[in-house]
Amino acid sequence: MKLPLGYKYAATYAGIRQVEKDDLALIVSGLPANAAAVFTQNRVQAAPVRLGRSHLKASKGLCGAVVINAGNANCATRSGDAVALATCKAAAKLLHLKVPLVVPSSTGVIGVELDPRKIIDALPRLVSGLSADGFDCVARAIMTTDLVPKTAFAEARLRRGAVRVAGMTKGSGMIQPMMATTLGFVMTDAVIPPTQLRVMLKRGVERSYNRISVDGDTSTNDTLLLLANGASEVRPDPGEFAMVEAAITDVMESLAQQIARDGEGARKLITITVTGAGDSEAAARMARAIANSPLVKTAIAGADPNWGRILSAAGNAGVTFDPKKTDIHMQGVKVCQGGLAAPFDEPELKAKLDAADCEIRVALGGKGKGEARFWTCDLTEGYIRINASYRT
Amino acid sequence: MKLPLGYKYAATYAGIRQVEKDDLALIVSGLPANAAAVFTQNRVQAAPVRLGRSHLKASKGLCGAVVINAGNANCATRSGDAVALATCKAAAKLLHLKVPLVVPSSTGVIGVELDPRKIIDALPRLVSGLSADGFDCVARAIMTTDLVPKTAFAEARLRRGAVRVAGMTKGSGMIQPMMATTLGFVMTDAVIPPTQLRVMLKRGVERSYNRISVDGDTSTNDTLLLLANGASEVRPDPGEFAMVEAAITDVMESLAQQIARDGEGARKLITITVTGAGDSEAAARMARAIANSPLVKTAIAGADPNWGRILSAAGNAGVTFDPKKTDIHMQGVKVCQGGLAAPFDEPELKAKLDAADCEIRVALGGKGKGEARFWTCDLTEGYIRINASYRT
Repeated sequence: MKLPLGYKYAATYAGIRQVEKDDLALIVSGLPANAAAVFTQNRVQAAPVRLGRSHLKASKGLCGAVVINAGNANCATRSGDAVALATCKAAAKLLHLKVPLVVPSSTGVIGVELDPRKIIDALPRLVSGLSADGFDCVARAIMTTDLVPKTAFAEARLRRGAVRVAGMTKGSGMIQPMMATTLGFVMTDAVIPPTQLRVMLKRGVERSYNRISVDGDTSTNDTLLLLANGASEVRPDPGEFAMVEAAITDVMESLAQQIARDGEGARKLITITVTGAGDSEAAARMARAIANSPLVKTAIAGADPNWGRILSAAGNAGVTFDPKKTDIHMQGVKVCQGGLAAPFDEPELKAKLDAADCEIRVALGGKGKGEARFWTCDLTEGYIRINASYRT
Repeated sequence: MKLPLGYKYAATYAGIRQVEKDDLALIVSGLPANAAAVFTQNRVQAAPVRLGRSHLKASKGLCGAVVINAGNANCATRSGDAVALATCKAAAKLLHLKVPLVVPSSTGVIGVELDPRKIIDALPRLVSGLSADGFDCVARAIMTTDLVPKTAFAEARLRRGAVRVAGMTKGSGMIQPMMATTLGFVMTDAVIPPTQLRVMLKRGVERSYNRISVDGDTSTNDTLLLLANGASEVRPDPGEFAMVEAAITDVMESLAQQIARDGEGARKLITITVTGAGDSEAAARMARAIANSPLVKTAIAGADPNWGRILSAAGNAGVTFDPKKTDIHMQGVKVCQGGLAAPFDEPELKAKLDAADCEIRVALGGKGKGEARFWTCDLTEGYIRINASYRT
């Protein structure tokens, strides 16, 4: 699949992280793009989150470049605001953009001062290295504890021509995005007015990034940025916006799933579906409670069809339901019917739960049409090993 | 310290759990005791929780005996209600009590039928084995994944004489009691009217069991029962009730701390104190958010003074505060001042964090007087090992 037109990418090693692995990246749109963004709901917000929000406001939703560093969250530091601003100023000067057209983004350790010289010194070689083919290099440069880069692509064939969507994201710990995400950058070359772009982002986030959790922790730096530069010169007909939105949502959903699958220490992606709730918000709340239960996550790690833990976690979601009407399926096998044990072949189901993809379906048997899907990962010793020694 | 007067205890192996280790226990008060209880807030409630609640209502808060089994939660089973009732009836007959004076209590795996014959067959030898010295045997019989039995004792010397309090509890996983706990039984021989007993229990729970979390999961069977049989014949003067309440709360606080310290896989007890919040409820909410952050818990496991994770977890509690005014101490060492890194000797602090007791203090610097203490444990590979293979 082809990348969206009109974007260039570059990545380099600026010496921010200790291992020599690209840690600074640049995404540039030839024509400033319409931009919509969501940021973390954590009360503690990193300097780049605050500055990014204020830049997008000042630019009235236009964005020409994104500067991203890994290895340091630029959060809870003395010089945080100054570093984020200096970064944007240096990039703006080199790219001949107004400063508010540059959005900064950081990920990594919290509370350690970030040396702006490292970024400013590296920016000229980043700019000279910009290329339409640099997409994958950027996707790799933004990784922290990720084991694999995470990208997704889609295309919508409209009456006036094709438009393309490409996205990249990072993250595998401190993952429970709330109204936003870890870092995610989604580019399209469709012509989309700012208002519609914001609506598409908001609805897409609800069905993707806001439906995953690795460990129930929400980061201080979560940012999801959606850019539409119109470089395809294809303006969707009114009836075609749904197709473009579907392509964007598909990319976001794929990215979100990739985060859950690559959760710290994870060996399995768990898809949780709740149906029959009063509304989709209640269904999502219950799915999230199941996804965040360490007892459910460790049971899946051990290929243990311990549905009692699923039912108990559901009971803790603060959602009204009747356990006596509740059915639970694991890997398509009914393990609980009407809140009671259903007969199943345990060795057979254990073998099925050894798969890289595990599925939990909870049907509440209520009259409500509320349903939700949610993704998480199993909880293994690997999560502990990574996080008992991440910083030091 | 002496045990409260007028209680007898017995435990035996009834064959409910697979390993031959006592799994059935009985606590009897010679004179039926005034009783107050709190139960799990989980929407999925075990049969003994439902029956215990209804019995205490029917008996107008009188309790003569408690029958407790480990190894099976008697939850989400076809025969659950019948088994709980049959248990109470059999015990009542042997003890010459009315049925509603018996409270049933179960802990263990969810969703597996519990054979009532095992309990009914074992009850006669339990009753004949009742003894004032059996307290520790019962404390051991109610254990599941606990490594150590958990008991606590207190005494209040009043004008008319001494009254004694003794408590026992169990639990090390599926622990985040909400308005209640895992299983806990607290006995006193003071003369306390039912209304006051309920108030003491409610206030005590708020400062003990509702301030601990091992893994953020709330069980389906949580029960905390407080019995006052008056066997000391000491009726506190109006001014002395506070002393009795303090003794009861001390016992409950000690029991709750012991649960956190013995959390599944835990090597450390973590005490989290939040001060300067708008009210104590907000302080407790933030302390709970920090206690439930797997990133904080793994950092403590790794003796890593990663205060950024503490600040980030605080930011996710949904509590209004100013990160720029927030100080954080770990083991008495200031690691964060005004939301920024404070200078500290890292190797020295890492060594201090190797202790079995770790302390995190978060001072919000607000004008509020709201403060709370909360207890949790570190998150280690041991938790995963235990829970990836608990059932099978």
